[in-house]
Amino acid sequence: MAKPNIPQGTRDFGPEVVRKRQYIFNTIKSVFELYGFQPLETPAMENLDTLMGKYGEEGDKLIFKILNNGLDNPAKHQQAKEDFEKVLQGKNTKGITERALKYDLTIPFARYVAMNHGQLTFPFKRYQVQPVWRADRPQKGRYREFYQCDADVVGSNSLINEVEFVNIYHQAFIKLGLTNYDLRINSRKILSALSELCGGADKMTDITIAIDKLDKIGLDKVKEELSQRGLNGDQISIIENYLNINGSNEEKLTQIKTLLANSGTGKKGIEEIEYVLTSSTQNSNPQTVNLSIDFTLARGLNYYTGIIFEAKAPAEVKIGSIGGGGRYDDLTGLFGVPNVPGAGISFGVDRIYDVLEELKLFPETVAQGTKALFFNLGLEESKTAFRLLQQVRQEGIAAEIFHEQAKMDKQFKYAEKKNIPYVVIIGSKEIEEKICAVKDLQKGEQQKIPFEELATFLSK
Amino acid sequence: MAKPNIPQGTRDFGPEVVRKRQYIFNTIKSVFELYGFQPLETPAMENLDTLMGKYGEEGDKLIFKILNNGLDNPAKHQQAKEDFEKVLQGKNTKGITERALKYDLTIPFARYVAMNHGQLTFPFKRYQVQPVWRADRPQKGRYREFYQCDADVVGSNSLINEVEFVNIYHQAFIKLGLTNYDLRINSRKILSALSELCGGADKMTDITIAIDKLDKIGLDKVKEELSQRGLNGDQISIIENYLNINGSNEEKLTQIKTLLANSGTGKKGIEEIEYVLTSSTQNSNPQTVNLSIDFTLARGLNYYTGIIFEAKAPAEVKIGSIGGGGRYDDLTGLFGVPNVPGAGISFGVDRIYDVLEELKLFPETVAQGTKALFFNLGLEESKTAFRLLQQVRQEGIAAEIFHEQAKMDKQFKYAEKKNIPYVVIIGSKEIEEKICAVKDLQKGEQQKIPFEELATFLSK
Repeated sequence: MAKPNIPQGTRDFGPEVVRKRQYIFNTIKSVFELYGFQPLETPAMENLDTLMGKYGEEGDKLIFKILNNGLDNPAKHQQAKEDFEKVLQGKNTKGITERALKYDLTIPFARYVAMNHGQLTFPFKRYQVQPVWRADRPQKGRYREFYQCDADVVGSNSLINEVEFVNIYHQAFIKLGLTNYDLRINSRKILSALSELCGGADKMTDITIAIDKLDKIGLDKVKEELSQRGLNGDQISIIENYLNINGSNEEKLTQIKTLLANSGTGKKGIEEIEYVLTSSTQNSNPQTVNLSIDFTLARGLNYYTGIIFEAKAPAEVKIGSIGGGGRYDDLTGLFGVPNVPGAGISFGVDRIYDVLEELKLFPETVAQGTKALFFNLGLEESKTAFRLLQQVRQEGIAAEIFHEQAKMDKQFKYAEKKNIPYVVIIGSKEIEEKICAVKDLQKGEQQKIPFEELATFLSK
Repeated sequence: MAKPNIPQGTRDFGPEVVRKRQYIFNTIKSVFELYGFQPLETPAMENLDTLMGKYGEEGDKLIFKILNNGLDNPAKHQQAKEDFEKVLQGKNTKGITERALKYDLTIPFARYVAMNHGQLTFPFKRYQVQPVWRADRPQKGRYREFYQCDADVVGSNSLINEVEFVNIYHQAFIKLGLTNYDLRINSRKILSALSELCGGADKMTDITIAIDKLDKIGLDKVKEELSQRGLNGDQISIIENYLNINGSNEEKLTQIKTLLANSGTGKKGIEEIEYVLTSSTQNSNPQTVNLSIDFTLARGLNYYTGIIFEAKAPAEVKIGSIGGGGRYDDLTGLFGVPNVPGAGISFGVDRIYDVLEELKLFPETVAQGTKALFFNLGLEESKTAFRLLQQVRQEGIAAEIFHEQAKMDKQFKYAEKKNIPYVVIIGSKEIEEKICAVKDLQKGEQQKIPFEELATFLSK
């Protein structure tokens, strides 16, 4: 039979990788919990209706749809053929597929809130760390199955939530050792005010799409694109002034206040940024948050309406965004429940993994499994080894006994390959003396430890 | 729009349920780790080839297949129609579907071992806790998406592994508070020897299927079924003798030794059971393992070849099996890699959840989220509250501030609904005195705590 494989764009995670990923997940989850967020899990499958039409035309095409079971029932063949014609036309039909794999965590969360809004306590603060699936073309760093890691609060307009999110990013990144993380803030209200200055709200999409590319293509090309998108010289010059705003947060605020002096929306946006900046700087502990204003920050998704965030990896790693989020007006309107505003952030866990790997920031012990291997030197010897093994485990120390009597060499090799730091050798002499030989494989040192002290020794 | 819903047979898990499930998962995982098992995660999707033909004809039908993307490409319509004809005939075709959701954790594990056997260290001990999907008809306790929780060791014939599994069950159940769990052991070798006694190995399936029903239908009906399955009176009477074996483990062993006195296979099976019984009783700590011989135990899956296990919930809960497993000869032969024997066990986590719920065995603190809610009594007051809040969080205490200034009533209600045990009230008087009012919502008592003592007070 052909050599087995896994679907393109999916991954197996072996022991070391699972442990490192769990370290990231647990660190972030523990911060979410500290801030009063509660875990939610939704199924991998959603009804196709729930997902379709929520991610734009391109998004719809990337949804993995599940084939209905029972199509081989002859009574249904005629209908199935007709239904399949619709699939070929790019339409969906319940006759062929009525379920799909979730594409992100936001829409299932919205569906959950809409389904349960009568029972939930608002503001409802949930976090969710689960895989999602997209039929994207796989490439470096882009997978068809990957985890998202989101926290949202819904049913609240308060800016306190944004301040909390700044502190969550701060605390999570500090815990992960990413002290030089770079958190940017902007407001869609400021982008909206800029669009008004440039001839109307309908220009906002064009302007944000072009601005978003500043980092990649530079100012001249952005101006070119703005021109192609129908903005005139005066308008482009306003945007150039906007993009040239620079300096410290205070300096930027002074400049934007001048530029948007006549815009109510602009003022509101500026006030909100000032509030979040002031409050999160006051309350950050023990270190100041790395929060800087970035008026070029736009965030693609159109549903953001207020403060927006983007977190970037430390500059020495060329990896870009490791998180983002913002405020939205309406989470559940699409599901028939109006007036549920909220805000949310996410962590890009795959990229954070790569950053920690590159900067060697994973704690040394994170991938540690078994701490001690008991050698198996025969039936009688292994009885004593087994007894001590169970004592050691009772103290919470992960330990194994080699599965069969074998040459010492083979048993050493097993320990080395599994990165087990200690081996415990109990032969007939050791049983007589009630002392075992313990070898530290890293240092290459061997010492004698009385049976009753073994657990204490290994728990150091 | 229609009220949103989730697919039949799937579940959302809200905060309390996620926490309780995590408690079960983490307890079992921590025991797996203590015994040197390492985590593995495989994708939700496998290539359809990997799964088809592994679960019998009925199983194949219950696999959720994923519709290929891009079927709306007109250039492929003709081929797609032809391919769909095959789907209607119950055949699979890569033109329509080439991926599917995993049906269990064993086949993906086998596929992983076959793919990576050159790199793995054998014996390879892995545990895996992930969801699987089956298009079964949903009913009470049966879901289309559910978690499996497996540990396997492959590349070893040693019975030490079986002894370890007994201890893993023991330690996990004890940790979960299920002290009266009931672990049964048998050997497929003994069932095989019985079949030989009754006319040949080809009778084994018939015999095990009938025996397996003893609990449900009673001895008379089992005899009836055996007769229908073509066994004659002499043979049925041997099986009756076999099923009537009873008493303590020692008594059962004495009786089976007599019955299978002339069978080499039988003797081997008996020896193995004796070894596992003796070794796991010797090494269990601190309490004796509840391991009993049950010669009626058969386990449906045909791939078991040696010792088999089944774990049952304490008798006072009518829920039956909460785990099982056994030894198999050949994990990866289907994927072209021969000679990989192993043994494995699984925990039925959904049922364990129900048992812990019914017996009220979840620790009281397991579903605890936020420990303290800081009231929001205005802009100035909340600045002080925020500062203290951050100090409390630095001590690892989950805490929140109410998202907006609101009536005390409303804030109390939020705390109650979220089961937050303490509220911290800081008004202008409290700020002046540097003392906050802390109310214990369960006891209904309020006391005054100096600011600097708050974190210590709440961490109790």
